[in-house]
Amino acid sequence: MAVIVQKYGGTSVANLDKIRAVAQKVARAREDGNDMVVVLSAMAGETDRLVGMANNASGGEPDRREYDVLVSSGEQVTVSLLAIMLNTMGSRAVSLLGDQVRILTDDAYSTAKILDVETGRIGDELRKGKIVVVAGFQGVDAKGNITTLGRGGSDTTAVAIAASLKADFCEIFTDVDGVYTTDPNLYHKARKLKRISYDEMLSLAGAGAKVLHHRSVELAKTYGVPVYVRSSFSEDSGTLVTKEDEEMEQGVISGVAYDRDQAKVTVVHVPDRPGIAAQLFTPLSDHNIVVDMIIQNASSEGFTDLTFTVSRKNIGEARRLLDVTAKDMGASRVEYDENIAKISIVGVGMRSQSGVASKMFAALAHEGINILMISTSEIKISCVIEAKYTELAVRVLHDAFDLDQEP
Amino acid sequence: MAVIVQKYGGTSVANLDKIRAVAQKVARAREDGNDMVVVLSAMAGETDRLVGMANNASGGEPDRREYDVLVSSGEQVTVSLLAIMLNTMGSRAVSLLGDQVRILTDDAYSTAKILDVETGRIGDELRKGKIVVVAGFQGVDAKGNITTLGRGGSDTTAVAIAASLKADFCEIFTDVDGVYTTDPNLYHKARKLKRISYDEMLSLAGAGAKVLHHRSVELAKTYGVPVYVRSSFSEDSGTLVTKEDEEMEQGVISGVAYDRDQAKVTVVHVPDRPGIAAQLFTPLSDHNIVVDMIIQNASSEGFTDLTFTVSRKNIGEARRLLDVTAKDMGASRVEYDENIAKISIVGVGMRSQSGVASKMFAALAHEGINILMISTSEIKISCVIEAKYTELAVRVLHDAFDLDQEP
Repeated sequence: MAVIVQKYGGTSVANLDKIRAVAQKVARAREDGNDMVVVLSAMAGETDRLVGMANNASGGEPDRREYDVLVSSGEQVTVSLLAIMLNTMGSRAVSLLGDQVRILTDDAYSTAKILDVETGRIGDELRKGKIVVVAGFQGVDAKGNITTLGRGGSDTTAVAIAASLKADFCEIFTDVDGVYTTDPNLYHKARKLKRISYDEMLSLAGAGAKVLHHRSVELAKTYGVPVYVRSSFSEDSGTLVTKEDEEMEQGVISGVAYDRDQAKVTVVHVPDRPGIAAQLFTPLSDHNIVVDMIIQNASSEGFTDLTFTVSRKNIGEARRLLDVTAKDMGASRVEYDENIAKISIVGVGMRSQSGVASKMFAALAHEGINILMISTSEIKISCVIEAKYTELAVRVLHDAFDLDQEP
Repeated sequence: MAVIVQKYGGTSVANLDKIRAVAQKVARAREDGNDMVVVLSAMAGETDRLVGMANNASGGEPDRREYDVLVSSGEQVTVSLLAIMLNTMGSRAVSLLGDQVRILTDDAYSTAKILDVETGRIGDELRKGKIVVVAGFQGVDAKGNITTLGRGGSDTTAVAIAASLKADFCEIFTDVDGVYTTDPNLYHKARKLKRISYDEMLSLAGAGAKVLHHRSVELAKTYGVPVYVRSSFSEDSGTLVTKEDEEMEQGVISGVAYDRDQAKVTVVHVPDRPGIAAQLFTPLSDHNIVVDMIIQNASSEGFTDLTFTVSRKNIGEARRLLDVTAKDMGASRVEYDENIAKISIVGVGMRSQSGVASKMFAALAHEGINILMISTSEIKISCVIEAKYTELAVRVLHDAFDLDQEP
């Protein structure tokens, strides 16, 4: 008998038949004697429909408080439907919304951070033998206003509840059956991993892999919550995301990730003096534009070039800000390149192996793929390349590090 | 400068364009210097869609707590959309759900009664100059569970808030432009009333008129809230529902109502002894089946017949209960007739006029319409007739009492 938190994403609750399948899965786990907390997203497409209405109603800039009230209605529908089905099937279930749990967040509407998850009400219901169905993605601020956690928020809800309840583990049911060495849609040799460490998962998420949201993995790591990534549509045990330990697979590299949502910006011929980086990046961070890879070339004759990447969706706003800043700084011009992709290899084995980077560069060079930028961290190496080479680069690196083989 | 509560029904917020029209109406009233509270229903059809899902998910008997969580999501969408539009238009608006207001109810899910409306949060927002948009139809019980008020619940929400805030008046915007002497769809000579008393409105609602829900009128009467029934789609001033006073129109009759949703039940040849009525009706009231008109014929030789009406939707359940009870009581049989209608005339003028009932009976008799049951109250006379005569009876009575003429 364990305390289990399960999370089902939008495609797993896309219609009544799929919710019924979830109900059966949950009821079985309850009948096995487990205390069950189930976190749901809205039906696939519903959040997008609500966002569309909000934009239509406001010309694209909806009041942020009210936007959260609107989009949080989607989860209210799925949690009550699942609870209705479970009760009809003879299980006892109760739904709880973010403010009923209560999941306390800050008041940053649309991107709220969870501050605390109260476990009193959930605990009471579990002790009564009930299955607790919690609306993902939503919380409540200190004043009682509804907040939402942003994309991937339901994963974060599930992990936060698992942490607060000290649950035995958290299962994230999604439309893929685990974490792969690379995107199986891109390369048929992709292999499912049995285990992966929190840090590797974080690096993969940061490198563009979309299986688990970055924040949910950080939370799982902080509180040591074991997380299974599993498919709603199969009985496969999926991938366990957990602490790095002796049992980890011992390959050098765990996966290859790619990110086609980045754009490259180069500020050319900037007078090189202390403070130029701050001067350049402060306006961007003030506008919540995240700068990813940053490279400053060695200064020549008092001038330098600064190159970095930003999310492609921010490129318009970044342009407006940078064209002003670059002029103020005395730079000669700013160049923008949206036809790029970031390819990353990730693995804790890198720490104890030399030659990993050069093996990566050689594999790309062998196929004539030019490297535009490089950045490295303890367990990740990322290269920016021309976008058209994305698929080729993924396959080449997957083969170079023998990722289709169990280590 | 007044405090005004406005309520817009489902057809008035059926899509974004209609919500935009509501936003413009509300913003104008605010610009005129009024403190505005706006109560909304869900989009027309949305509650039915959610109810359909609940039934589909449960084979027709959804868990009652969860049913309320599900159906209350509809109002969450409309209130946030209206608040988004108002903010976009430059008005300042904030949406509040039932638990945010807070509208405290008992825990009778689906048919909850309002116990208290807290005015603290609404008052705070009004003092900040904001338009407060409240989700109708929903409340919260003492334990924080979501409840709904049943059909017509948004009217009740609006009147309850108006009463608590001591608002100057409450406007119910709907798809008709006021209260008519009879259903204009049934008789083209129907005339819109400028004023009507609470008691007449209650009698009309009880007699089948569907403009305002019974409970909202009772609440308005108790707290003396002036209620305007108006059309969302015109500038017509509508009908004022208010205290009976000198200015009331002085006609004998204010309106003719009909109700085709009743069925007639006769328990034949019951041994006449004390307690038979209680024995017969207790099982029905235990199952929340409302019995409307009751007639007990004069006892002959120790036996009597009991005739009454119940809502047609309850007839199946009533049958199951009555067939058992009637046998226990020694009645010879139970007869059911669903092909009936109840025709009522309503008016405070009846109190001071004699001959109103006989005029009604004569008018019906003149057209060969047989009266199956009669019941009278201080300001209402109802007759049960064969259903096929409904339209004819309405027209005949409307003419007989000259309702197309201003009194």
